[in-house]
Amino acid sequence: MTMNTRAEAFAPATVANLGVGFDILGLAISEPGDTVRVEWTDAPGAHVARIEGDGGLLPLDPEKNTACVAANSVLNLLDVKQGVSITLLKGLPLASGLGSSSASAVAAALAVNALCGSPLSTMELLPAALDGEAAVSGRHADNVAPCLFGGITLVTGIEADDIHRLPIPEALYLALVTPDVPVPTALARSVLPDSISLRDMVAQTGGVARVVDALYRGDVAALACAMESDRVVEPARAHLMPMLVEMRAVARSAGALGLVISGAGPTLCAICDAAKTAERVAGAMQAAYEQAGIAAVSRHTRVSETGAKVLQIDA
Amino acid sequence: MTMNTRAEAFAPATVANLGVGFDILGLAISEPGDTVRVEWTDAPGAHVARIEGDGGLLPLDPEKNTACVAANSVLNLLDVKQGVSITLLKGLPLASGLGSSSASAVAAALAVNALCGSPLSTMELLPAALDGEAAVSGRHADNVAPCLFGGITLVTGIEADDIHRLPIPEALYLALVTPDVPVPTALARSVLPDSISLRDMVAQTGGVARVVDALYRGDVAALACAMESDRVVEPARAHLMPMLVEMRAVARSAGALGLVISGAGPTLCAICDAAKTAERVAGAMQAAYEQAGIAAVSRHTRVSETGAKVLQIDA
Repeated sequence: MTMNTRAEAFAPATVANLGVGFDILGLAISEPGDTVRVEWTDAPGAHVARIEGDGGLLPLDPEKNTACVAANSVLNLLDVKQGVSITLLKGLPLASGLGSSSASAVAAALAVNALCGSPLSTMELLPAALDGEAAVSGRHADNVAPCLFGGITLVTGIEADDIHRLPIPEALYLALVTPDVPVPTALARSVLPDSISLRDMVAQTGGVARVVDALYRGDVAALACAMESDRVVEPARAHLMPMLVEMRAVARSAGALGLVISGAGPTLCAICDAAKTAERVAGAMQAAYEQAGIAAVSRHTRVSETGAKVLQIDA
Repeated sequence: MTMNTRAEAFAPATVANLGVGFDILGLAISEPGDTVRVEWTDAPGAHVARIEGDGGLLPLDPEKNTACVAANSVLNLLDVKQGVSITLLKGLPLASGLGSSSASAVAAALAVNALCGSPLSTMELLPAALDGEAAVSGRHADNVAPCLFGGITLVTGIEADDIHRLPIPEALYLALVTPDVPVPTALARSVLPDSISLRDMVAQTGGVARVVDALYRGDVAALACAMESDRVVEPARAHLMPMLVEMRAVARSAGALGLVISGAGPTLCAICDAAKTAERVAGAMQAAYEQAGIAAVSRHTRVSETGAKVLQIDA
């Protein structure tokens, strides 16, 4: 292995679930995201030297910090004994439904691999990124996969064979709004029903089939309609999202074709078919929250073809 | 309306569910199917004059015979007061999981429309065909839609907008075997669970997404694997299908990529990627049943692009 002295990687925000596709569908957006810088240190194992942008909320404990867990997993995979110092620049808000923990884990895995001369393929980094994600919210790849590979992904397990890239409709634009109301993933999971009726399962499988069909046909209106057909997860979580019903109406009035909860929320993701519409919808949603006295950040963006990437390597 | 004196229509067998796609996916095969002949009579309404090939098992009661219900529905739609005499030639075995009641209903709807000069489009015949199906097994379109339109269909409701044609993989070949063990649809429905776990719902939606993805990519191996991933319906119905586990092994040994229950069974449908393989698999499955003392009929076939069709019109 050709060791480098420093490396830096970026991993983007992701929108998981896409409404009806709970735990199986996700997509990467261009920004924001997390950046991880790594360099060698004497003490063995990975350690977090510094975190910026988390408001002091993230744990530094190597077993609880997702970036650190993922970094250690890569070091173990490569059987590297030397220690690594991590600087994490959080660009993503915590517990906001934008795949914050996945982004930190993926950026760290990618950065450590680059530090070691990039011996592992992106696919080979998946288990390490999953280890990082598992440290906080279970071993799910619905955020990790789109974060690592980019695009829109169908994830039906945690092996390479279980991850499928789906087509990105040419006219797909997104408007996102994140109200300043944290929704911990664990809470958002705890409100889900343990069981659902067979009838709802049929509706849910039909909705997911329509999502995949619409992606292949590049039909954004059909996509939005199918995404919104979720009968199981949104109804259970709706009360955790401030003004969900109102925001859907605001988004539609501004031209959006549909709106879903991003991941476990509270970020909401509106589906649009033009850049200008997405910009208008993002602005309208933010204004509606602010008018109600809720601070919010909004953005309009597209699906990112490329996922996480190495930003810099110092030899 | 230009009335004709006689008309005859054919509607094909269908394979519903495709494993994991319970109640939403189905496909039409070229043959066998049911043929319906109609001509005018004096008594108002549709009446069944004769049924061939049902062994005397189908009801002649106009409110219980699916062909008759569908025929009456078309007459009502067109506000035709004159009576119609129906001859039904059953080419499909009853209660075999091949969409027998749908084929009779669709053939009758199409034949009566042709008798009346074909004023209705195929799509406009859907409600009448559904009326016929509803007379015996509920208002489902998972068999009716592929029977009427042909191809592989995704059905998420009973309106025109709820029916989507999916691509047919170039290399998709089917081997079907029908053991002589009737499985009434009502019984096959009664054994299904009322509710399923959220975890199983996630697996089921993932499996359906993989089916649609595989159809678009024309990947028959991935299709078979995804179809077989059903965790909900096959486990509940397996005990109604003679030798299901053994037949899957027989089909695989003969080269099939997977095997699912066709509709509510007991017909089994093996997925193959070559004509010769499908022929060999069909033969092997039939031989295995016969060796076990169970009479069986087997066929190898393909998905039919065209669904039901008018065979003859006498002006």
